[in-house]
Amino acid sequence: MSAAQGVHKVVIIGSGPAGWTAAIYAARAQLHPVVYTGVPKQDPGPVLPGGQLMLTTEVENYPGFPHGVMGPEMMGLFQQQAERFGTRVIAEDIARCDFSRRPFELHAANGDVIKTNSVIIATGAVANWLGLKNEMRLATIGGGVSACAVCDGALPAFRDQPLAVVGGGDTAMEEATYLTKFASTVYVIHRRDSFRASKVMQARFMGRHNAKVLWNKAVVDVLGDEKITGVELKDTVTGEVSRLDVKGLFIAIGHTPATKFLKGSGVELDESGYILLRHRNSYTNIPGVFAAGDVADSAYRQAVTASGMGCMAALDAERWLAAEGVH
Amino acid sequence: MSAAQGVHKVVIIGSGPAGWTAAIYAARAQLHPVVYTGVPKQDPGPVLPGGQLMLTTEVENYPGFPHGVMGPEMMGLFQQQAERFGTRVIAEDIARCDFSRRPFELHAANGDVIKTNSVIIATGAVANWLGLKNEMRLATIGGGVSACAVCDGALPAFRDQPLAVVGGGDTAMEEATYLTKFASTVYVIHRRDSFRASKVMQARFMGRHNAKVLWNKAVVDVLGDEKITGVELKDTVTGEVSRLDVKGLFIAIGHTPATKFLKGSGVELDESGYILLRHRNSYTNIPGVFAAGDVADSAYRQAVTASGMGCMAALDAERWLAAEGVH
Repeated sequence: MSAAQGVHKVVIIGSGPAGWTAAIYAARAQLHPVVYTGVPKQDPGPVLPGGQLMLTTEVENYPGFPHGVMGPEMMGLFQQQAERFGTRVIAEDIARCDFSRRPFELHAANGDVIKTNSVIIATGAVANWLGLKNEMRLATIGGGVSACAVCDGALPAFRDQPLAVVGGGDTAMEEATYLTKFASTVYVIHRRDSFRASKVMQARFMGRHNAKVLWNKAVVDVLGDEKITGVELKDTVTGEVSRLDVKGLFIAIGHTPATKFLKGSGVELDESGYILLRHRNSYTNIPGVFAAGDVADSAYRQAVTASGMGCMAALDAERWLAAEGVH
Repeated sequence: MSAAQGVHKVVIIGSGPAGWTAAIYAARAQLHPVVYTGVPKQDPGPVLPGGQLMLTTEVENYPGFPHGVMGPEMMGLFQQQAERFGTRVIAEDIARCDFSRRPFELHAANGDVIKTNSVIIATGAVANWLGLKNEMRLATIGGGVSACAVCDGALPAFRDQPLAVVGGGDTAMEEATYLTKFASTVYVIHRRDSFRASKVMQARFMGRHNAKVLWNKAVVDVLGDEKITGVELKDTVTGEVSRLDVKGLFIAIGHTPATKFLKGSGVELDESGYILLRHRNSYTNIPGVFAAGDVADSAYRQAVTASGMGCMAALDAERWLAAEGVH
């Protein structure tokens, strides 16, 4: 069945851990899944087929790899496994979804219209970055810049070193508190003179002996060639420029779920743009439309949690299709 | 800190995918987790440290292993990864839990009393088996006997072959319907003359062209040396003995969650004995007690879903301990 003719049983949008795991399970269930991987772009941050792991170096916490595995290599293994069981892979974006018709119609960026009985949305969420020249370069080479303290905080390079967190919300406080377990000092760098974070989360961070806050400071440059050596700060009130030596920089200014293409589709999103799931599974508000991974999860955001959700979505879709009489 | 003195931050009970993943995350978060793996026993079915995967041969659907991985090897990798980050492993059963005190008290089968601020329950669920001589032997050598159609149904050995499912509930119907995609014929073997399964699930199975039901039949022997060749059936009404040639036998007579040791602990279970989780995470009704994997999941029961839940439980425990002021 080609994308241009006929009706698919399930189309999976997205190619991170959730998308590939959904594909592995859907393919083994004879649903002949098609994965739309998307294409590389810069909107709002770097978006890549393979998801956020394509921007990481070593992944130490995905179970099954006791010596770690490189993020892009891991996504290659996932894709290989999905293809082994017959998954079809198309390197194209889905621009728009029409879930008001049956079968559903997906409109690809190249003009193709894809008909399918069910859809699994696994487009992920991208970390927001400051947009500085050196920031992304150091992040992608494992140079000590990261958007995930839980993923990277335990790396040996950060032990007993000064680290900085940029942000002022609950997530920034949580990541900063987490990092106090490893760092000599954790600096939270914030543009304003007060945090948006809840009082309890602020207090939790401030209560740690190695916690420091730098108010009214913006990071204007990230220093270092192969490893970060520090950041250049500008005072947002006085304009004064200073330098802070750190061995790690954690950007915690939020994530943007990739749900723009769902505008007008009727899929319920929360106030931050994440897909709202029903019950304890992968069902969205639209029967036949399922979601998995970071696009529907602002709480955990790990490769293994996304994979688990991808598996659930494929099993939910398989059971739903069986109930609908689609074999 | 030894098990006999001091207070742990987190104790993980169980050593399948959920337990080891929780340990990987808890260890990396500096919670110094202790895993109680349990010891091998026969109650109600074969229970092993490492969980249900120790009874399987090749696992094809855990993402990251495109060429498959043997179940016990995979659990070895998980354990190695957990130990690499400092997890302590104790080969002992937890017999009883006292969650009415703070810190909690866990009573090991050897008499040890373990004090801990939080607990992650990941003891799994065991498939119920018929209890026939050849059944478990063939199941553990990959001889075509299985308790999980989603796990094993897609294996090449089952393609276009006659398969049998034993059971009469919704899960048996679901597994049998799933297997009709692969098999030449799927026989559902049932002891009685009607199913306990819902009408809609029965109709779904019966509607497939290759579905057959054998009423009033009990499996009294599983035939075959290295691979199953058939089953011996006894008519539960007439007593007549017959033989059915099949290349696969799927036992679908339910699972038993390993929650006996929670008797009197106050942890809420559902009517089948599974731990009830709150919201979309790993919280049980008792603050500080978390659960993950098959012991709290009767719907998906996959290695990767259990792993995802284990990760969530560790992150939930970490955040809960931080809020409680336990560093």
